[in-house]
Order: sequence, then C-alpha cells, then structure tokens
Amino acid sequence: MSQAKPRLLKGFRDYLPDVELTRRDMLDRVTTVFEGFGFGPLMTPAIEYADVLLGKYGEEGEKLLYRFPDNGGRDVALRYDLTVPLARIVSMYGDIPRPFRRYQVAPVWRAEKPGRGRFREFMQCDVDIVGEASIRADAECMIVGLEVLRALDVRDVVMRVNNRRILDGMLDAIGVTEREPRHAVMRAIDKLPKIGRDGVAAEIREGVGLDDAGLATLFGVIDRKIAGAADLEALRPLLGDSEDGARGIAELTELLGVLDASGVAGQVAVDLSIARGLDYYTSTIYETFLVGHEEYGSVMSGGRYDTLLGMFLKESLPAVGISLGVDRLLAALLELSLITPRKTAADVFVALFDPEGYAEHVKLARLLREHGLRSELSLSPDKLGKQFKLAERKGYRYVMLAGPDERARGVVNVKDLGSGEQSVLALADVAQWAPRFNVGR
Amino acid sequence: MSQAKPRLLKGFRDYLPDVELTRRDMLDRVTTVFEGFGFGPLMTPAIEYADVLLGKYGEEGEKLLYRFPDNGGRDVALRYDLTVPLARIVSMYGDIPRPFRRYQVAPVWRAEKPGRGRFREFMQCDVDIVGEASIRADAECMIVGLEVLRALDVRDVVMRVNNRRILDGMLDAIGVTEREPRHAVMRAIDKLPKIGRDGVAAEIREGVGLDDAGLATLFGVIDRKIAGAADLEALRPLLGDSEDGARGIAELTELLGVLDASGVAGQVAVDLSIARGLDYYTSTIYETFLVGHEEYGSVMSGGRYDTLLGMFLKESLPAVGISLGVDRLLAALLELSLITPRKTAADVFVALFDPEGYAEHVKLARLLREHGLRSELSLSPDKLGKQFKLAERKGYRYVMLAGPDERARGVVNVKDLGSGEQSVLALADVAQWAPRFNVGR
Repeated sequence: MSQAKPRLLKGFRDYLPDVELTRRDMLDRVTTVFEGFGFGPLMTPAIEYADVLLGKYGEEGEKLLYRFPDNGGRDVALRYDLTVPLARIVSMYGDIPRPFRRYQVAPVWRAEKPGRGRFREFMQCDVDIVGEASIRADAECMIVGLEVLRALDVRDVVMRVNNRRILDGMLDAIGVTEREPRHAVMRAIDKLPKIGRDGVAAEIREGVGLDDAGLATLFGVIDRKIAGAADLEALRPLLGDSEDGARGIAELTELLGVLDASGVAGQVAVDLSIARGLDYYTSTIYETFLVGHEEYGSVMSGGRYDTLLGMFLKESLPAVGISLGVDRLLAALLELSLITPRKTAADVFVALFDPEGYAEHVKLARLLREHGLRSELSLSPDKLGKQFKLAERKGYRYVMLAGPDERARGVVNVKDLGSGEQSVLALADVAQWAPRFNVGR
Repeated sequence: MSQAKPRLLKGFRDYLPDVELTRRDMLDRVTTVFEGFGFGPLMTPAIEYADVLLGKYGEEGEKLLYRFPDNGGRDVALRYDLTVPLARIVSMYGDIPRPFRRYQVAPVWRAEKPGRGRFREFMQCDVDIVGEASIRADAECMIVGLEVLRALDVRDVVMRVNNRRILDGMLDAIGVTEREPRHAVMRAIDKLPKIGRDGVAAEIREGVGLDDAGLATLFGVIDRKIAGAADLEALRPLLGDSEDGARGIAELTELLGVLDASGVAGQVAVDLSIARGLDYYTSTIYETFLVGHEEYGSVMSGGRYDTLLGMFLKESLPAVGISLGVDRLLAALLELSLITPRKTAADVFVALFDPEGYAEHVKLARLLREHGLRSELSLSPDKLGKQFKLAERKGYRYVMLAGPDERARGVVNVKDLGSGEQSVLALADVAQWAPRFNVGR
C-alpha cells in the first residue's frame, strides 16, 4: 500500500473526542428543545444537482460552491446551506402537511478563504417553519431560540429584532429605489458592528452614491432607540409615505405585543440597525447576543423569507427560521464556563489488575454500567502505575480496581485522581455511590 | 431567481422527519452504549486529499471515489469509509493516548451503481480500538456489539466468528500461496450465502484454478462444525503444518475462552465460512445475524486489521473494530416491530382556539414542556375540525385545546385521536397525567 503523507486540507477541521463530546452534549440539548416544540429532523444528501443550488446565493456565493462533474458526468455540487435543500424538499414532497416544521443539523461546504473562525466545512443548525404567514410563526422561532439558550443555561442574552420593511421604508424615503443598491445598503448596515458608522457611511456613499442628507436620514432611523409601540409609531414621519415602511411598523408592533404577552419580551429589544447580510429576508429579522460578550457576534440569527421558496414552486410560500451558530456558541459556552467540557466518554476507568481476572473485570464494568456508570475497561494488565497514568492522560477522574482479593470480598478500590483519595466500595453499594461520584448526567 | 426543477440525484435519499426521527432514536441508543464503554466520538471532514484515500480500497473501490479538483486545484475526494480517516487521525495526532477508542457516525460516499439497498451516500457507524494487540480488544468489540443489540431489544442474535489465519492455514494446505489468489478465495467464500456452494466452487475453480481435491479440502474446513475448543484442536490436521493456521486456532480458542468467561458465549458461534470481503483483515472476523431473519444479512461486522494503520505510520499498529449496518438494522427493527416508529417530534398537538389567546397557548405549551410533554403549538386559529385534521395528518395521537372558558378554569380538553375519547385535564394535574398518556421516553 502507498505511503501517503497524512494531512488535513486547509480550512477543514478534525474534531477529536474531547471537543466532539462537548459539542454533541450541546447539540443534544439543542435538538431536545427543537423536538419539544414539534420540529422534526430532516436529512438531505451532501451532493445536489448544481442547478438546484445555482442562482440562490448571489454571484459571490456561487463562486464558493464545491462544484464538480460526478462519475457519470452530472454537474453536481456540495450543499452550501440548509435552506435551499429545505426549499427543494417542500417543493418535491407536496404531501408534507403544512405548516412544516423541521430542523436540520448538518455540515455545509463553502470554498471560503480560510481565516480566523472561517472554515470550508462547518455545521449548520436550523429550524424553520414553512407555510405559516402569521406573525405567530416569527414569534415561535424567536421563542424556540430563547428556549434553546435557556436550556444551555445562557440566561443573559438579548435578541435584537428589526423588520426589513422598516429599512425598506427608509430606503424609499431617501430615494434608493433600485433592487441592487437597496441590497447594497442593507449589506453595508449589516457590517455596522465590524466597520463602524464611518465605515458604513463611506461604503454607502461610494457604493450607492447617497449624499449627506440621505445618510443623515438613514442614521436617524437606524440609531433610533425604540422602547415600545409608541416609539415605533413615532417613526412613521421618518419613513415618509412608504407603504412598506408602514407595514414594517405594524408588523413589528404586532410581534412585540405577542412576545410581551408570551412573557419573553424581557429578552427582546428592537434594534433598527439589524439588517442581516442575506438578500432574501423580507420582514422580521433577528440576531442574538450574549450580554457583555457581544464580541462573539450573533449566536442565533434568522428571520422571515417569504419569497425564497418560490424558487422551486409556482406559488410563493411563507417561511421563517432561526439558525444557531454552533461553533461560536460552543466557543462562548466553553470560554464563559457555561458548559462543562466532557473530557472522557465514560465516567470511570476500570484498571485491569491481572489478565486472569479479565472476565471478572468485564462483569464488573457491566455491573457499573447497569447502575448508570459509564465504564472504560482497561485491556492491558500493565503495571498499575502505568494504568493510572493512562487514565489520567485520558482525562479520567475515577479509577476502579479489583484484584483477586477485592473480587473475593465483593468490593472495589476507588481512586479519585483529583484528590488522590482512595476508598473501598462494596459492589452492593454501587447504586448509592453513583451519584456521589458526581458523574451523573 | 432561476426556476430549476427540484430533483434528487439518483442513488441518494432524503430522510423526512418520520423516518429520521426513528433513525435518530436508534442511533442515540447505539452511541449511548458506545460511550458507556468509553468510546469517544470523532468527526473528520467529508473532503480529504485524494492521495490520502488512494491505494487503500483496491482498484474496484478506487473507481467509486468521488474525486475532483477543488476550487484551488487540489486533488481531493469525498470520504469513502471511516477507517482511513481514523488511520490519518492516529498518525497525525501522536499525543492521543493509546489504546485509542473512538466511534464515528457519519455518511460516506461511493459512486456505486444504485440498486436495491445500495446507495451512493450512506451512514457508517464504527467503533474501533487502536493500539491494543491482545485478544481482549477483539472480545471487547464483540461485547460492545452484542450490548448495542441488547440496548435495541434485539435478543435473538448470533455473532458468527472466525479467524482469517485459519483460512490462511487452509490456503497454505491447498497450495494457494500468492497474495492475489488468496484474496480472491476469501472474497469468493464471503459470497457463500449469496451464490451458494456451487457458485463459490465455480468462482474459485475459474478464478484461481483450484482442482477438485483442493476444493474438497476447502469445503472440509469451512463446512466444519465447531462447538468448542476440542473441535478447534481437531482442525489442526486439515491445515497441515501451516504456522498461520496453528496461530489462528490458538487465537480463536483464546477468544472463545474469554467470551465464555465473560458470559456472552451463548450469543457467539464459530463459523469457519465467515471470510469478510475486505482484504485488510488479519485475524479475528465476525458477522452478526438476527436468528430466523438471516435474510437481512449481517447487521454488525468487523474484525482485526493489524497492518492497515501502517499505511501512514512507520510502525504498524494493531487495530480492531466493529461496524453497525445502520440502514439494514433500522429496516429490520421496523419490520420486526422491535422499535416503535416515532411519527411526530412532539407528543401533543396544542390547537389554537382563538388568535387572541395565542400568548395563553404559548404559556400552556411551555407548561406542558416543563412537565416533559413535547408540545407543538398550532399557529393558525383555523376551524377546530381543520386543526384536528392537521394534527391527525401530522401523526399526532393527542390534541389539547383550551378556549377562554377552559383557560379561566385552569383546565384543558384532551382528545385522543386514536380512540376518539375526550377528557378534561386540570393544569395542576399535568405532571401526573404525562405518563398516563404513554408518551414518555
């Protein structure tokens, strides 16, 4: 066999068990919340016909597709996001009852220039509701998102919400009427936290040719503090007679009312500078920040996109969703000690005292598992010092040990590698001791 | 935006929530067992350098690689299995403590001719132990495999075990000495259940040129019934003076002893006709069948491959693993009613009586969730008949309903769509009622 040099492609990552265990723990909690709200899992192939994906992500996005001829010469590409596959599913399986609530947790591939926090393969984690136009679906997605963060013990968060139609009204008011310049302004505003007000102003002035008066109106809107319905009402004059603007105000007012009545308004704040970079959002948009840790960026974002599903369907179909930033949220949870990293798959390392006693050790490990203690059985009857060292290197805190003498007495020795403390545990007492080891889930 | 025809590539599958929910339930139980034995999860990229994968799967396998130049012109390919990525990981991260126990559940891609049960993207689910040469590691993999099936309530199984070295000894005895013809004989024997004795004999006669005397010796070995160590001992004369053969007998005898002492021998049977199709197995090999339902084929297979990891490493490194046939096992579990298909992500559908009461419904759904009842809240205040119909189409058994009157009284109406029965439940009693609905997990 060939001796290839083992190496990883740039922009890709291996997740070794220490990180992957914690990531799985996090995603388990997330999907439990999704299912608790009646969202069902969907799985679509990694490979799609290229033309199914083309024309959906803009010129810039399309350049990032992993596109290639397959072994039969078909023009195919790797999944770029989870939204277009959702659109394909909804249009191909007409008998799925609507509203269709689905979640999908799956990797996507984009041939981005790799950089800090930017990878060519990354996990997306989306929930969407397709086929429900009412503002209640927007509220439901926001409530799910907040519940996910609560399930992760992340309490101090703020979901910043806006309505694209208010920004559309502002664009009407300042006379930016063409589709492309409007998108360009949205994308510039979306960069506010990164490039600042001067950066945004410069990008819009240069890119779209907006003058100082227009920019003043623009910042007059997006800077505006909105504490409630009255403030939204007071926004009307700034949007002139734009129908979109009026509709945006009405929708956002209704949404706030629903969220308030549902008891989650305390974690929601209107922020008229939230714009979202993607072109396809039509009305409600939101981003979620950890209060005091805004540097992580939005950990959960989304909004309503009522025209996107018309890509494949004759009819247009309303849709709204929210997407979890898995990697940045995990990084934040770990750095803020909001999640306990799990270093080992199991709770206890069972050292192998003697090869002759192997079967007895198998039975001991089985007994421990029956009592809820995940147990890795050592397979080498190495010197005990070496086995303890291995357990330590593997990240275990507890090592159990039963030589012929202990086995005859029906006990095991337990060593806490953290404290160095050693104790003797009767097998009959394992059930009571399991929680004492603080390894329960 | 373009109007592409939404379609799925041939050989690929969409998993809609009804199937995916059940598959996830199954995989959850499987990975819980894996972690219970101290195996940690690993995640590797879908895309690898092509030369990392080349030279590992034989000429036939290599043709099935999805191989393409990436956007930077690098020669890359999609993951073909989980074993070569494991080998890459072990060789790249030298500080991983050994023995390294890992599991990986991930899709792989092979451009096979699609056919019944054969897909171009399918899930693999592997556990492996790298760096432990003793027979205890072989036993551990078999014990994990049997425990997985027990966790899935599949009790009536048999794990058929063999040792490649016994077949090697048989090949020595009949004078097939070259590497390629030896592999060809192994692959022919592997097809026994599919093509029968005559088919195997014909394939070996034509492919390798073995005569009738050789074939008689071959079948004399692989047909042999082995009930225990004495029968294995009696096999020696058939293998002549082959060192491999003697070693295979000794290893299998030791393995049976360990399994017997560990209390799992009842589910294990020696079957000298088990050969496994892959070239890389070196000694212990096993396949697992549902007794009385052998038509599903092996649902869990694997063995020891002590030379494969030398592909990337200067040293060779012992390794043994077992792989779950996710799709065929799920098909079997469903058809044999061993797993209850979960049609809905949630347990209860909460109908929306009136739009004014939406926030109250949000709170009701929240209360139900706090008591462990996953609850999908209807977002449309459609006529109740229509909402009940939707709940039924979605697969729900229970619908809850609370109009202004019920809300004032602190109760909900509960309808069992199965029996048509209706009852009134006080919110204070939800905790006691939850198990009564038989929707607990």
